Amino acid sequence: MQRRVTILDSTLRDGAQGEGISFSVEDKLGIVRALDELGVTYLEAGNPASNPKELEFFERAARLPLQHATLVAFGSTCRKGSVPAEDANCQALLCANTGVVSIFGKCWDLHVREILKTTREENLRMVEETCRFFCSRGKKVIFDAEHFFDGYRANRSFALEVLYAAVRGGAGNVTLCDTNGGALPETIRAVTQAVCAALPGVEVGIHVHDDCGMAVANTICAVEGGATHAQGTFLGFGERTGNANLSAVIPTLQLKCGVACIPEENLHLLTATAMRIAEIANVTLHKNMPFVGRSAFAHKAGMHADGVLKNERSFEHIDPALVGNHRRFLMSEMTGKSAVLRRVQKLYPGITRDSPVLAEIVGELKEKEHQGYQYEGADSSFELIIRKRVAGVEPFFDLISYKVLDELPYDNNHSATATIKIRVGGKVKIAASDGDGPVNALDKALREALAEFYPCLNEVHLIDYKVRVMEPKDATAARVRVLITSADGSDIWTTVGVSQDIIEASWIALVDSIEHKLCAQRDQATRQMNCGKTKMD
Amino acid sequence: MQRRVTILDSTLRDGAQGEGISFSVEDKLGIVRALDELGVTYLEAGNPASNPKELEFFERAARLPLQHATLVAFGSTCRKGSVPAEDANCQALLCANTGVVSIFGKCWDLHVREILKTTREENLRMVEETCRFFCSRGKKVIFDAEHFFDGYRANRSFALEVLYAAVRGGAGNVTLCDTNGGALPETIRAVTQAVCAALPGVEVGIHVHDDCGMAVANTICAVEGGATHAQGTFLGFGERTGNANLSAVIPTLQLKCGVACIPEENLHLLTATAMRIAEIANVTLHKNMPFVGRSAFAHKAGMHADGVLKNERSFEHIDPALVGNHRRFLMSEMTGKSAVLRRVQKLYPGITRDSPVLAEIVGELKEKEHQGYQYEGADSSFELIIRKRVAGVEPFFDLISYKVLDELPYDNNHSATATIKIRVGGKVKIAASDGDGPVNALDKALREALAEFYPCLNEVHLIDYKVRVMEPKDATAARVRVLITSADGSDIWTTVGVSQDIIEASWIALVDSIEHKLCAQRDQATRQMNCGKTKMD
Repeated sequence: MQRRVTILDSTLRDGAQGEGISFSVEDKLGIVRALDELGVTYLEAGNPASNPKELEFFERAARLPLQHATLVAFGSTCRKGSVPAEDANCQALLCANTGVVSIFGKCWDLHVREILKTTREENLRMVEETCRFFCSRGKKVIFDAEHFFDGYRANRSFALEVLYAAVRGGAGNVTLCDTNGGALPETIRAVTQAVCAALPGVEVGIHVHDDCGMAVANTICAVEGGATHAQGTFLGFGERTGNANLSAVIPTLQLKCGVACIPEENLHLLTATAMRIAEIANVTLHKNMPFVGRSAFAHKAGMHADGVLKNERSFEHIDPALVGNHRRFLMSEMTGKSAVLRRVQKLYPGITRDSPVLAEIVGELKEKEHQGYQYEGADSSFELIIRKRVAGVEPFFDLISYKVLDELPYDNNHSATATIKIRVGGKVKIAASDGDGPVNALDKALREALAEFYPCLNEVHLIDYKVRVMEPKDATAARVRVLITSADGSDIWTTVGVSQDIIEASWIALVDSIEHKLCAQRDQATRQMNCGKTKMD
Repeated sequence: MQRRVTILDSTLRDGAQGEGISFSVEDKLGIVRALDELGVTYLEAGNPASNPKELEFFERAARLPLQHATLVAFGSTCRKGSVPAEDANCQALLCANTGVVSIFGKCWDLHVREILKTTREENLRMVEETCRFFCSRGKKVIFDAEHFFDGYRANRSFALEVLYAAVRGGAGNVTLCDTNGGALPETIRAVTQAVCAALPGVEVGIHVHDDCGMAVANTICAVEGGATHAQGTFLGFGERTGNANLSAVIPTLQLKCGVACIPEENLHLLTATAMRIAEIANVTLHKNMPFVGRSAFAHKAGMHADGVLKNERSFEHIDPALVGNHRRFLMSEMTGKSAVLRRVQKLYPGITRDSPVLAEIVGELKEKEHQGYQYEGADSSFELIIRKRVAGVEPFFDLISYKVLDELPYDNNHSATATIKIRVGGKVKIAASDGDGPVNALDKALREALAEFYPCLNEVHLIDYKVRVMEPKDATAARVRVLITSADGSDIWTTVGVSQDIIEASWIALVDSIEHKLCAQRDQATRQMNCGKTKMD
């Protein structure tokens, strides 16, 4: 039988400790959905006691229809001198209402003495009783053995005693943590082997940090040493240098070690999941990231590119398609055509690889990407390009001009005022609005202008707005990419705009959002009409 | 005696294969100086035959007074059917006039068959004769055994035969390359061990790529397996996912494995060298980089920060000063009073835990964080809060008003125009500017207005601008957080602003940036005056 390792993703908990990383409740739910679709087993998502946002998250997450993932709440053992049933932190952890909890406790005698300032016996009691408290309430307990590798080096028998205490308390999993990230692969392998031998029948996990740049290797070495559970964060987010990067751990285990950890048929979602999480976290996916980075299979023109064309194995360690990534030849024109064709055929099945319009679309895409557009997160803008090229969507309105005035001090409680002049059919319409900021004012003025022509736009509201500054070296005159996500109760869509002017970039994305809605409305009307005709026939 | 490993840095050769990396001759000379000062043994710097720029580089580099480093020219074996003395590539390599050359040759029978399209015997001849050609001309030869690990797996005896051929030809070093970056640590260790046993007395090196995120670990494992020479690039630049990152390999070997590779007294130059090379390469140093990244010793979680204050070893794997980095406590909602105090005391050592002003600062911090401010990336804005609370910084200027007009179609090629009215001392000043976008126009107008009062602001330029939209549920009326990074040639600082209006948020961050510069200027003036007074006394 194939060996299995369960994966725990801690992007929402340990990942949120990374510098510059912070998640709203919406962001967190989006990440849960992405990782569940990929097929990760456990999603560790913080402590409901830490703030009301966390509690709201757990309440809303409980209602998500998850296919693969189980949510895990995270907290510490009870405090010294207290019992779990009376410990506020343990009580709060129950509010998360998750089937699994992870509990961290001290394994390094130095920490017990100098940080907790208590005795080793008391520490063992805290670990054992806390595990028992949650087990007796029907939870599966993962015991996070904090600083295990340092503790094992300093006082091996005490470090093991802590694990025994957790197991006596009912923990079904003990996870060895290299909290400071300083351990080397050979140590990780040997210590994991020793622990597996000492705890037969217990699931042993690994949780490492990247302070020496070896977190992925350390995770793999622990699995080779017998661990059957691996923790990390999907993009390696985390305190200091970050946690083990699961987007490298998962494919390495699956493709190179013959160890199953996510459903095999989902592995090709790896790159898309990475892009989706980076987008939610509002960070640029580092292009050199193993497996999922934009450059991971990029060959600079020359010998390597030549070699790859002669035999793919010659310069690639795996087939990029296995992880949903693709080969790129830098400075060449070979990218993307098949992928674009697949997308076009979704809307217009009649288009083939030889249709002239396909070349036009690829050409426009290249041009737009050169300007800074990216369509991975903005499928609706991409769809509009296809529609306009293939079917020639007539514009629903034309902009004559807009002017946005932003001022400080505020004028009558609003910082911005927009006026807009548009043409619909033969009719010119002028509208104006104030707003909280220039984009809000412009958005309101545009809706005001369009309302009488397209009442269905009243259903549309914007639910997300993201800004990414590109080429930051030019600072305030840099290009910006704006992503706008809209919803109308039955559909959610995202559009993109790029400009040096953030208001113009927002305008472009706003217009795409409205065109998307109006196209969808028209498609629906056409379908109903055809349907009506069929019935009448 | 302490074990030694020689380091070969290939930033100038393999590093230049990285997407987005390109070096001028000046850049290359700068990198040579930086790595020589650090004490790296070999600097591999390309092939003089490949273009005239390379030849110019070697000519100029030969005149640099290097203390530690030896330059290495890089090229392939002679072609099939030719002899080195008549091979243009081998001849050209001599022009580099370096004491050491590295020669790469095929070790994987698949490559010999399908890429070179020749026989194994011919390949052995090419390797042996090329090594002999350079040795007989007084060069030390490093033989780069391309695809060695794949070759060893496919046909062990052939892979070893290639190494024997190189040694017969006089190569003093054979370096095992994991060219596709697909090998795992245990394989690297075992194969290196086997090669060291097969080639007693020969220097065995390791050269790996990061396609599985394990290049650093693989390098360390090879050294543990017996390698005494390690190749990589200082910041991990390189084709696809890059090469082994030497800024992590060097301190790991030196601090954790007890292996000497650069002069011990130079290790503290590590972080400065990383910043210098990133600056030359015109890339942002990734903040999560092990050892040298800005976040490598940054503590965010209250508990970790607390722990470090109680005992540094408790949450740090090494003392950051050993590699010239430093500990940071991120000012975030997760941070406690102790960390804030620590930061305040850097500026005002007299403030204690009981000073009323500390409570005021913590209070203001909480209030600002509630509004959406985050100081972990914007230390200078945080410092201004401290300065204003403790010493009461007088405003350098007051804003009376600004108005920014943004329009489409553009007016005379610019989308935005800003007018600003400020007061400095008793004087009112009005200025205006157009710009590429509203923030750019406002930034230019403000500088215009302040120029006559504070000429030192001419030195300041904005090098980074980041926008983060918070609570996106409110979409275009959401709050935004703007981070601005400024530089003046000797200092770099980051400031933050928050508002529902992106222009106002940018304005707040801009004002903080300017106040930071003016405070620094005044501090300097005060120090000079005090210094003058002391001399006069």
